[in-house]
Amino acid sequence: DVVPTCERYAVRRLPFARLGGRDVAFFERLLPGRALTAQEEVKPFNVDWLKSVRGCSQLVLKPQTTAEVSQVLRYCYEKNLAVNPQGGNTGLVGGSVPVFDEIILSTALMNQVISFDKVSGILVCQAGCVLERLNEYVEEQGFIMPLDLGAKGSCHIGGNVATNAGGLRLLRYGSLRGTVLGLEVVLADGSALDCLTSLRKDNTGYDLKQLFIGSEGTLGVITAVSILCPQKPKAVNVAFLGCQSFAKVLETFTTCRAMLGEILSAYEFMDEKCMELVERHLKLSSPVADSPFYVLIETSGSNSSHDEEKLNNFLEQAMASGLVTDGTVATDDKKIKASQLWSLRERITEALTHEGYVYKYDISLPMGKLYNLVDDMRARLGQSAKNVVGYGHLGDGNLHLNITAESYSHSLLDAIEPFVYEWTARCNGSISAEHGLGFKKKQFIQYSKPRKAVVLMQQFKAMLDPKGILNPYKTLPSAS
Amino acid sequence: DVVPTCERYAVRRLPFARLGGRDVAFFERLLPGRALTAQEEVKPFNVDWLKSVRGCSQLVLKPQTTAEVSQVLRYCYEKNLAVNPQGGNTGLVGGSVPVFDEIILSTALMNQVISFDKVSGILVCQAGCVLERLNEYVEEQGFIMPLDLGAKGSCHIGGNVATNAGGLRLLRYGSLRGTVLGLEVVLADGSALDCLTSLRKDNTGYDLKQLFIGSEGTLGVITAVSILCPQKPKAVNVAFLGCQSFAKVLETFTTCRAMLGEILSAYEFMDEKCMELVERHLKLSSPVADSPFYVLIETSGSNSSHDEEKLNNFLEQAMASGLVTDGTVATDDKKIKASQLWSLRERITEALTHEGYVYKYDISLPMGKLYNLVDDMRARLGQSAKNVVGYGHLGDGNLHLNITAESYSHSLLDAIEPFVYEWTARCNGSISAEHGLGFKKKQFIQYSKPRKAVVLMQQFKAMLDPKGILNPYKTLPSAS
Repeated sequence: DVVPTCERYAVRRLPFARLGGRDVAFFERLLPGRALTAQEEVKPFNVDWLKSVRGCSQLVLKPQTTAEVSQVLRYCYEKNLAVNPQGGNTGLVGGSVPVFDEIILSTALMNQVISFDKVSGILVCQAGCVLERLNEYVEEQGFIMPLDLGAKGSCHIGGNVATNAGGLRLLRYGSLRGTVLGLEVVLADGSALDCLTSLRKDNTGYDLKQLFIGSEGTLGVITAVSILCPQKPKAVNVAFLGCQSFAKVLETFTTCRAMLGEILSAYEFMDEKCMELVERHLKLSSPVADSPFYVLIETSGSNSSHDEEKLNNFLEQAMASGLVTDGTVATDDKKIKASQLWSLRERITEALTHEGYVYKYDISLPMGKLYNLVDDMRARLGQSAKNVVGYGHLGDGNLHLNITAESYSHSLLDAIEPFVYEWTARCNGSISAEHGLGFKKKQFIQYSKPRKAVVLMQQFKAMLDPKGILNPYKTLPSAS
Repeated sequence: DVVPTCERYAVRRLPFARLGGRDVAFFERLLPGRALTAQEEVKPFNVDWLKSVRGCSQLVLKPQTTAEVSQVLRYCYEKNLAVNPQGGNTGLVGGSVPVFDEIILSTALMNQVISFDKVSGILVCQAGCVLERLNEYVEEQGFIMPLDLGAKGSCHIGGNVATNAGGLRLLRYGSLRGTVLGLEVVLADGSALDCLTSLRKDNTGYDLKQLFIGSEGTLGVITAVSILCPQKPKAVNVAFLGCQSFAKVLETFTTCRAMLGEILSAYEFMDEKCMELVERHLKLSSPVADSPFYVLIETSGSNSSHDEEKLNNFLEQAMASGLVTDGTVATDDKKIKASQLWSLRERITEALTHEGYVYKYDISLPMGKLYNLVDDMRARLGQSAKNVVGYGHLGDGNLHLNITAESYSHSLLDAIEPFVYEWTARCNGSISAEHGLGFKKKQFIQYSKPRKAVVLMQQFKAMLDPKGILNPYKTLPSAS
């Protein structure tokens, strides 16, 4: 069983009220059949997907409407009960499960589409809609979601927004800060803030919704989202290539960006160790000859013959100049699915969990230095780590550095941290490119943000959630 | 001469200190030769570009560094002196000039590029760089600025960010909320907030910079900007088309978005009245047969033959189906410049100023209803207005509604407002799509934002600028 977070990390519980029988009775009246208290029902909500952190909440609430979320929070605020908002519980930094006995507020039943406009491509929906379901829904109408990530089958759009999820399409469609047009949020005291507009442009006052994007449930509970969906591309191609060095991975990127231009929609890389793990644990097989590095390129465009011509021109040049030593291409939806090229990249996270405990780092760096961190870490840890692997969204300067060991050990953690953060800070990188800070990274914020910025964040938190009941112990460093 | 704003609008001066001889002496010591007090030198900084508002500041400060901005604000904060930050002074809502005697803090001398990374396309520069100069600078290195607007020859990038400028490329490259990667800001008390990162992705805590984007200088003074530049397209085409009705303008958009897909970089429209004015006042001539509506389409891509093929396919279909009745195309940089097709659209604002006083409205609406507002306004005003014209960024749902009269009149204003805002609110539109609220629109914020949102904005303002010295009388409604 997973060691409770409060024990492993020696956290002190803040002086919130403890859940009593009257509280439970109130919630059972408010949400009949949707206030879970049975231990076996509550258990999965207490543990994260990686099985790396565990809370001990005794109550899961499943509201269906914004009004219900308001009533829950108004009650908790008044009674000083701490609340842990939870979407699909696919977070990787311990942000989505309680640290102690926080009440879990799940968006699982808030899964209704509110509207979709076929002319503008603007989708408005409740926060608990699963990303993959939304993508299927808008695909039927000729659009796609502007984001895509490995956890799409379980993650909720509200959680995506609350963590400012990046993922595989950011290179092409930009971040949620641009594509999210509106939000509805319930604040700590239960009051609702309706910024759920469906306008591409709106410059009337400060853009409040931005504060909630990426705030990891610490400033308010996102209950509905308005988001701009791009048109579904008529042609998609995927190429999977082998490169002999990281320098060639970089040069291949520059070449492909110039030659594919506006149709480039993903540029992902993984090292040979990642390939070994997905082959071993997931029974996937590499479609190209063994190479130190692999690159996955996706194009999305409106004219298949134009796109194929661009892609072929690029591949010819990349092969001829020795940038790439082997490659394969899949050129339509069915072939892309059958080829499992995306699975090789998307399922690395899953393959890693088969190796034991995973220390996960999600780093932004200037592109040229991206892999140096993996090399340095491998040299530093030597035999004390089972695997040190690197993969990620190269086009966005985003490295996923993962280190595995049979089980969690304090001493290995001490060898990794703060070394990894100091290394990143020296390059002016970010210690969390897309995963957020959650519980596990919050004490390291100063490696990427100046003190003044952290103080301001704390002031915003104090202003919006004066009792600190929303997702406590997360995102901001505890005063020490 | 322009009537002073405080007289025309009967505003009451807030109890800030009045500038004294000692203050001036301090600033002259701090910024030798860069503290302007001579009346004729100060005058142009007191009047907006439209000559619609006028302040009576007696001092213009021109710092060159962030440290100087800090020192200026620290002093002003301590002495309770109000400050009006000013970029290129091209704003359209009276946000960029003082209302009373606020000290003008000009970014004109903060015009240095700090760095440019040719791999990532990330530009870091001081806030006073002129947009067009920056575009020329990055073009030499194979990139373009992600925004473009008519005022590019004078506007400062810091002002662009402070007003969350939209413009002509938003359709393709998204808003500044996605492309601005980092900001350096000096707060009201003179302390500097360094969020000037050059990372595509960074999820470490709340995204503070977003609060300053679009805050119109009321929360802090932007001193430097980090921004992601897209690659310079290898091929650009511009088509100028005539349409017989607004319904056809809309249908042409849907068709062209489907057929041009990823290479569509602008979709602008203007009505026949706009064409009449640019022809009359600017000696430009229409390249197509007289039509009730005109559309300007731009494509930007990486392969000229692919792009021309896509554009030709679209034009053939648009002509064959009667969506478009006449059209012309310019297919390379020189021809595009020589054709002046963009000037027809970009210089409408300028042409309008020749007609007398201009009442300007910048409205976001669901696309289908966009022109109904112009029709309704024309019917409502009848002979009391000289012109009622509509043009704008159709692809973004953004209408520029302009009404002209020989001179400013209260009674005409009363016929327009609040009618225009009520009309917009009924359609859930925004009363300011891209211009901001500044001085002229701030009292109307409630037409686009709920009360709760305005209260929160006021709390943010009070937290970041407790004495209210930064750009007072702007953006947020005055308590009444």
